[in-house]
Amino acid sequence: MNYRMVFSMIGRLLLLEAVLLLLPAACSLIYQEQQDLMTLLMTAGIALVIGGGLTLLCRTKNKTIYAKEGFVIAALSWIFLSAVGALPFVFSGVIPNFVDAFFETVSGFTTTGASILTVLGTRGEVLALSHGILFWRSFTHWVGGMGVLVLMMALVPTGSGRTIHVMRAEAPGPIVGKLVPRLRDTAKILYLIYLGLTVIQVICLLVAGMPLFDSLVHTFGTAGTGGFGIYSTSIGEYNAACQWIITVFMWLFGVNFNVYYLLLIRAFRPALSNRELWLYGGITLASVAAITANVWAQMPYTTFEETVRHSAFQVSSIMTTTGYATTDFNLWPMFSKCVLVLLMFIGACAGSTGGGLKVSRVMLVGKAVARELKRLVHPRSVGVIRLEGKRVEESVVQSASAYIVLYFLLFGGAFLLLCLEPAFDLESNFTAVAACINNIGPGLGAVGPTGSYADYGALSKVVLSFAMLLGRLEIYPLVLTLLPGTWTKK
Amino acid sequence: MNYRMVFSMIGRLLLLEAVLLLLPAACSLIYQEQQDLMTLLMTAGIALVIGGGLTLLCRTKNKTIYAKEGFVIAALSWIFLSAVGALPFVFSGVIPNFVDAFFETVSGFTTTGASILTVLGTRGEVLALSHGILFWRSFTHWVGGMGVLVLMMALVPTGSGRTIHVMRAEAPGPIVGKLVPRLRDTAKILYLIYLGLTVIQVICLLVAGMPLFDSLVHTFGTAGTGGFGIYSTSIGEYNAACQWIITVFMWLFGVNFNVYYLLLIRAFRPALSNRELWLYGGITLASVAAITANVWAQMPYTTFEETVRHSAFQVSSIMTTTGYATTDFNLWPMFSKCVLVLLMFIGACAGSTGGGLKVSRVMLVGKAVARELKRLVHPRSVGVIRLEGKRVEESVVQSASAYIVLYFLLFGGAFLLLCLEPAFDLESNFTAVAACINNIGPGLGAVGPTGSYADYGALSKVVLSFAMLLGRLEIYPLVLTLLPGTWTKK
Repeated sequence: MNYRMVFSMIGRLLLLEAVLLLLPAACSLIYQEQQDLMTLLMTAGIALVIGGGLTLLCRTKNKTIYAKEGFVIAALSWIFLSAVGALPFVFSGVIPNFVDAFFETVSGFTTTGASILTVLGTRGEVLALSHGILFWRSFTHWVGGMGVLVLMMALVPTGSGRTIHVMRAEAPGPIVGKLVPRLRDTAKILYLIYLGLTVIQVICLLVAGMPLFDSLVHTFGTAGTGGFGIYSTSIGEYNAACQWIITVFMWLFGVNFNVYYLLLIRAFRPALSNRELWLYGGITLASVAAITANVWAQMPYTTFEETVRHSAFQVSSIMTTTGYATTDFNLWPMFSKCVLVLLMFIGACAGSTGGGLKVSRVMLVGKAVARELKRLVHPRSVGVIRLEGKRVEESVVQSASAYIVLYFLLFGGAFLLLCLEPAFDLESNFTAVAACINNIGPGLGAVGPTGSYADYGALSKVVLSFAMLLGRLEIYPLVLTLLPGTWTKK
Repeated sequence: MNYRMVFSMIGRLLLLEAVLLLLPAACSLIYQEQQDLMTLLMTAGIALVIGGGLTLLCRTKNKTIYAKEGFVIAALSWIFLSAVGALPFVFSGVIPNFVDAFFETVSGFTTTGASILTVLGTRGEVLALSHGILFWRSFTHWVGGMGVLVLMMALVPTGSGRTIHVMRAEAPGPIVGKLVPRLRDTAKILYLIYLGLTVIQVICLLVAGMPLFDSLVHTFGTAGTGGFGIYSTSIGEYNAACQWIITVFMWLFGVNFNVYYLLLIRAFRPALSNRELWLYGGITLASVAAITANVWAQMPYTTFEETVRHSAFQVSSIMTTTGYATTDFNLWPMFSKCVLVLLMFIGACAGSTGGGLKVSRVMLVGKAVARELKRLVHPRSVGVIRLEGKRVEESVVQSASAYIVLYFLLFGGAFLLLCLEPAFDLESNFTAVAACINNIGPGLGAVGPTGSYADYGALSKVVLSFAMLLGRLEIYPLVLTLLPGTWTKK
């Protein structure tokens, strides 16, 4: 284990966080929120001191990063980033308890959107929190969505040629490759596409009549597939046009970014022959149709358009693991709620900002299952699994199967720990774990779209924070960091 | 597909069922229940006619059975067996609806123990059903527990040398082998051990003060790890000694029968070095300790002994997927209920009469996950997985992983279909599927130990019947039978 390189990377990341904190600080300056300006600048100062200290102390000539350093860097970076990012909430007194503030920040960076805040009001009232704090809270979604380490690689040269290990540990999906030969260029391209889509969404929302500040924070939440809003009724506060725009953009941010790159370089045929994209679209449409039929039959909204809109919004929100809501789907009939629960597990496409198991991983293990069935009937058949036309190596298939098994094991463990809370029912606990490990945000029951995670105890909040990190980093980095074997010299 | 051989095997099985029906008929004769005697004999007659007809019509010289014939024989046999076995309930008017009667019979043969009966009373009252019908209902557990096709192989020579494929398709666990070179001898040994343990349990219960009829039906339920009782409060009606005896025997019937064979041939060292046995015991003890502590702290029974007894009974019942109860665990604190839900999925040992995923399959995929973690840190390491000291072939590991993935997919599908019922909550639906696919019986909520499955609609009952068959036959036979590719000539 190359300790110096690990902590040097974490140091650089904290320096980046200090710079990122200047944006909400600028927001506070514009809205003339003196106290929050000081809070944010003080946090930036702390990040600067710790980050600078680590960078200077851990200078090393040995810049080698192997797979295991990649995992450890990813896991520790996200924990440090969240711990420091929680300070503005504590200092400003908005969330005085550090465990709560840590939960909220992890929820932000992992783009979960699960909140312990109960003070958010409705539109027309005075905002419950200051603009600077709300901006920071939503901005963490944008930073976490595409990956903060990827951002660092795009901006800061690290000198190591093997940063692909870091990117693999942070990026979502079963197979991670480069778009272009140089990794730094790949990171830059990804962030440019991300920024471009973000700008387009802000413009669309402004045109549809959403105020600038609201457009920014909700675009951060959409782009990162996060889900933090500024009102207790989430997107339900805005007009139908805004709701449709956010529906479409949530779905777009759930698409593999490779598809956008292919479209940009005018490679339309390979872009549109992406199987994962079609399956993702198919599942979305089928779910919208099923829920619309079920809801329209059993608890009609005023118009059919409204029924379709709420169905499409909620499906897009849950499938991409964003977590925004336009209606209290906790009141929907059981079948529709059950469709949403199953969508929670599937998640968005690999290489998008969304969470969950990912459509391509589900495809991969689905094909492994089909091969197994074939082998039972024809014992001597040799099956090769192909994904997107390419032969998938056997180790990738095994890895995806092992991933799903480990996922359910950790799910069960977290569920068991949460059930130590006597106050909540099985539905709330089960969907709380599902909503956190899949980085969605709201669940059903007590943690439904109108509820909050505030009433869980400290142990449960720590468990759920780890569940969110497990989901965002796709399990392995955090689990490997906790294994003592990873830390030995050889 | 060798159609003739498939239906000839099913014919023989129905002939066997006709013979088995004579036992409850004898019971009716002893208790002088004229009408039920006629009902049971009429069903035996129908089984005789259909079975004889199939056997005669489908005579063939080509007795070859390949893997796929094995799966199809297992799947169809169990469906035919249950359909005919349901007739006494219908004819006697106890369960006039055929779908309900099919559900009850599938629940019996698959040793699930989920019941739609709501008429069972408490001790001291007149028995709600006649002795003959109750005997048949519980006797299906005993027949289904060790496998009805295995029983047939022990009794009837089939002339085919490849019946190992049929046994593999019916027997539980990831790896199925023979104890002795000849398969028929293996089947005989298994049934002799099974019969021996059954007799010992009946004697123990008689000594502890349980009446003979009650001892017989509850021993059938324990031996098959089924769970049908004769009173609405299950084993709660009997004294502490009876409860402890059933606790121990449920656990014993959850042990791999190979262990008993090794003990019988005095191979004590290999018997006791069985890793699965130790893990099974460890999980049992840890769960009993956790639940005792949780229940004793939050809702103490009168004495500590009572708390331990109820904890041990319920853990042994759920882990072995029997489903008997001595207390309404639906009223236990959330944590204890959650431990029980997780135990539902683990299940008993491979090669026992219990259901669930099986301890050895959990061990196997656990080792595959550990290997995957190791490979992430050391990409060039080659890991070999060993189970019980023997190297496990890669195809078995892949098969076990695919099995668990398919299991969760089918679980999700059944859950979704059940959620079309508007009347039930998520907890009831989720645990109903878990209790059926793992062959346990009672779940939580509406299907808890004091509830019943009576209020589910016909579609849900069919779905749950298939879930029970999926669980008992370990998914593949039923799924392959439903695939059109299995039925083509080549």
